[in-house]
Formats: sequence, C-alpha cells, structure tokens
Amino acid sequence: MEFKKVAIIGVGLIGGSFAKALKKHSLSEEIIGYGRSEKSLKKALDLGLIDGYRLNFSENMKDFDLVVLATPVGVIVSIIKKIIPFLRPDTIVFDAGSVKREIVKEVESFIPPHITFIGGHPIAGNENSGPEAAKDDLFFGHKMIFTPTRNTKRKELEKLINLWKKIGCEIVIMDKDRHDEIFAQVSHLPHVIAYCLVNSIFDYFGSSDILTNFSAGGLKDYTRIAQSNPEMWRDILLMNKEYILKALDSFEEHLLMLKESLFNNDGEKLLKEFEKSREIKIQFKNYQMSKSK
Amino acid sequence: MEFKKVAIIGVGLIGGSFAKALKKHSLSEEIIGYGRSEKSLKKALDLGLIDGYRLNFSENMKDFDLVVLATPVGVIVSIIKKIIPFLRPDTIVFDAGSVKREIVKEVESFIPPHITFIGGHPIAGNENSGPEAAKDDLFFGHKMIFTPTRNTKRKELEKLINLWKKIGCEIVIMDKDRHDEIFAQVSHLPHVIAYCLVNSIFDYFGSSDILTNFSAGGLKDYTRIAQSNPEMWRDILLMNKEYILKALDSFEEHLLMLKESLFNNDGEKLLKEFEKSREIKIQFKNYQMSKSK
Repeated sequence: MEFKKVAIIGVGLIGGSFAKALKKHSLSEEIIGYGRSEKSLKKALDLGLIDGYRLNFSENMKDFDLVVLATPVGVIVSIIKKIIPFLRPDTIVFDAGSVKREIVKEVESFIPPHITFIGGHPIAGNENSGPEAAKDDLFFGHKMIFTPTRNTKRKELEKLINLWKKIGCEIVIMDKDRHDEIFAQVSHLPHVIAYCLVNSIFDYFGSSDILTNFSAGGLKDYTRIAQSNPEMWRDILLMNKEYILKALDSFEEHLLMLKESLFNNDGEKLLKEFEKSREIKIQFKNYQMSKSK
Repeated sequence: MEFKKVAIIGVGLIGGSFAKALKKHSLSEEIIGYGRSEKSLKKALDLGLIDGYRLNFSENMKDFDLVVLATPVGVIVSIIKKIIPFLRPDTIVFDAGSVKREIVKEVESFIPPHITFIGGHPIAGNENSGPEAAKDDLFFGHKMIFTPTRNTKRKELEKLINLWKKIGCEIVIMDKDRHDEIFAQVSHLPHVIAYCLVNSIFDYFGSSDILTNFSAGGLKDYTRIAQSNPEMWRDILLMNKEYILKALDSFEEHLLMLKESLFNNDGEKLLKEFEKSREIKIQFKNYQMSKSK
C-alpha cells in the first residue's frame, strides 16, 4: 500500500468518489476529510466515504502520505499555501481541479522543494454535487490527465499514476496550457453556452412559463447542463479566461456565419454546416464503439 | 371509428409513430403510406406500420377520410397543392410540420373551401429518423398543438382533437405565429447552437481527434442534438427565419454580456447569471414532478 493515510480536502462529488474508489480497491488504510462545512463532512462520514474529518487545515496534516485537493478550483492555491507548513517532506500533494495552467504555475512559484506537488484532472463528473452524489466507479474507464512540469518529481508521479490506474483510469500526460486550451473548448464553452441559452429564452419571454411548458428534447439537455454549480463555473471561467474567450470568439464566428446564411436564404450553406456536424458525431460514435470492444 | 381510411404521406419517425398509435388504439381500419422512397415505404410495410403504399400521390387519394402530411416541412405545401385535385370534399388534410406560420398561410391561400385543412405540431420526436425509429407511444403524454385560423372548420377540428386525445396527447390550441415564435426559442435555437458549437470546436482544432478523445458529459449532449437530420433543419430554419433570427439576436446579446463580464473579471455578474439558469431549471423540475403525479 503506497498511500496508507490519505487526506481529502473537499469531500464532494469528486473527492467523495475518489474516497469510495480508494476503499473499493483497498488502496489506503485511512481517509480523513477536510473542509469548511461540518454538515457536509458529517454526511460524508455517515455515508462511509471517510474514516474521520477535521475542520482545521493544520490539524494532523503531518500524518498523510497523500493530500488530495478536490475543492472548487478558486480556493485550491490558497489552501495549498495554508497547509504547506504542516506537511511532512515526503507527502504528495495532488490537485484534481478542472483548470490546470494557473493552479500549477502558482503552486510551483511558492512550494518548497522538499514537497511534491502534482496537478491532475479526472475526466469524470456530472451536474450533481455533494458527498451524496459520490460513486465508487465515477472514474472507472475514464481518462485521468496529469499535467507535470519539468519540476515534477518522476518517482512520485509514477506512484500517483499507478494509484489512478488501479482505480481504472486511462492515464494521459499533457502540458498544463494545452489542457486548459482543450477543456476551454470541449467543456467550459459548452457550459457557458448552456447558461446563455437558458437565460436568453427566459428573458425573451419574461418568465419561465414557456420553458416549463414547451421545452422539447434538445432544450432539456441544456437546462440540465445549466444546472451545474454556479460558484464552480464562475471560478473555472475566471481561471481559464484567456482560452475561454478564444473559444467564445471561434463560436461567435460560426454563429455569425450561420446567421448570414439564414439571412441570405442560403439553404445550401446551412445544409453543408449541418451535415458537417453530423459527420463529426459519426466519428465520435465509431470511437466509442471501438473503445467498448 | 371516425377515420376509417387514413393516408400518411411521409412514413418516418413522426408518420410511422402516428400509424403505430392509430393501430394500437384501433382508431382506423386501413393505413396507406405515400412517399418518394419505395425502399422506405417497403420497410414501413414490413414493420407493420402501414397496410399498403403508393408512390403516386394521385393514386387512390379519393379513398381517405384523413390525409396526414408528415414529410420534411419544406415540401408540405407543394404536396398539398398536388393532392388537392384528387381529394374527396369531406377529407380532412392535416399537416404535422414543426413550423406553422408559413405552411398554414400558404395552404389557406389556395385550398378550395370544400376541403378541410388543419395545421398541427406534435411535441415529440428525437434525433432518430426513418420508419425503424417509429414507436407507438412517441406521442403519449406529450402535447399536441393545433394552430387553427378563423377559416378552420370547427367540427372537423373537434374530430381531429378527439383522435389525438385518444392517442394520449394533451391538446393545446395556439396561434400559428405564436407557435413559430415559441419554437424558434425552445427548439430551433437550441439546435442551431448545437450545430454551431460542434463545428466551432472541430474547426478550432482542425480535426475531430480532440472532440473524440476529450468530450466530457455536456458536450456529448450537443453532439447528439447536432446529429439531427440536416435537411429537416435547413428547411425549418428557412421557414421560420424571422423568429429564429430574433432568437439568435437575443442569444447573442447574452453571450456578449457574459463575454464582457469575463473580460472584466466580474465574478459577481457571472455568478448571478449562472444562478439564474439554475433557478429556472428548478422550476422546470418541479413542473415535471407535478406532471408525473
């Protein structure tokens, strides 16, 4: 057992599912939860996700082989700053935030050389949150992205990679900037668009009656996506601003092109755009099928 | 049995599901399919959706009590024009297209007074198409919108309303313009946005590799929506151009506002927008729950 004692800071959907996975695969002896909300930590304890909890970040911090940050991305850096004085030199600090460039850059700017910090992003999750939403197979079969830098200690990275492999993840090593560029497009942009669409329809009609009464298949998916945690998404946007603005620019160009085609009654161009989307989906489906074989 | 003999022009997802529902509830004696593709009609016959088919619109047209148009919206008006000379005076012609203003206006401009024409829109469907996708409960529990005008014969409208009630629909009577305004927002806009988003991401990376490898929960919904029939959506856009352009304008305003908030690091404004979307969804959920009781 490489990580006997594990601390999880933020025992919500991601932190709680990680705890459950550790227990399921017998990958640690003791898991202690840390957080701001005692109510939420108590819930996590009652659900058996953790073996105990602390409200004070300094308390028992020297006990752990692994400290995992699974809080909203906006507070990860400041929490790491707070816990550093209390850590053992051989502890690995791992953050599971869904933005990486700013977090890794900032943490590396102040972390002392004897502490190992590794940034990562498990590609799993849904619009639910809180310890009740935790599932032991949330990460199983999904990608786990690590964003090491030239400062990252290789031996410790290998240990963490092995842990996530045992949980059932496919490991991907990626540059932190490239990570944020990709996820601005495939994750952050779709969420921003969903929020915009739901609010736009609401404001157009001045009430939610129309949304409530006449939303067909497609719109339900948008309202579900737009149900995601607002604080989480505010922080993600602010911490990946540059790439999200680029993604929005590219999206706006396409919107403008489509609007012009419609304005000019250019059915041929509209058809070409729609056929392109369909073609992309087919490739996606084939990949999914080849994966499940 | 009010409608002994029924013709369905276009036996795809909607037409085929209507045929199945008629059979399930014993609402007609004979259903004949019409269409351009013999292969597709043969398939519908093999699947038991219809009792026979014709490729020539003039053939047997005088036999029917009810003629249902379930083709792509772009050809509904021209087909009605073609079949009129062959109809019995007491036949009801019903179109199930998802745009209503242009279709109803145009058909009423040329239809002779002895023929009854009624426009409607069943609020059901998915991204599948073709007779194979037909289901006998596709419309069950869903809304059926009728868009009568002052020219619509009330007795015939009542007959059709009763038919759709027996299929399990909740009947809604709506002005044809209002229908198109509402569906531009709740259905057509979400589809346009999904096409735009998928194409934007594809073009940004210059290939579908990133989409294929790193699409998380939210994006999968967009790619699914963007898999819908391209010809169908081209026609819907062109036939509901004015309201869709208005919907796009409203959406663009929201996108611009959000972009500005992000550019200015205005976390408070971002949070307010995201919380608003979440609030709307909660109302939607409550409504769904009250409906299922």
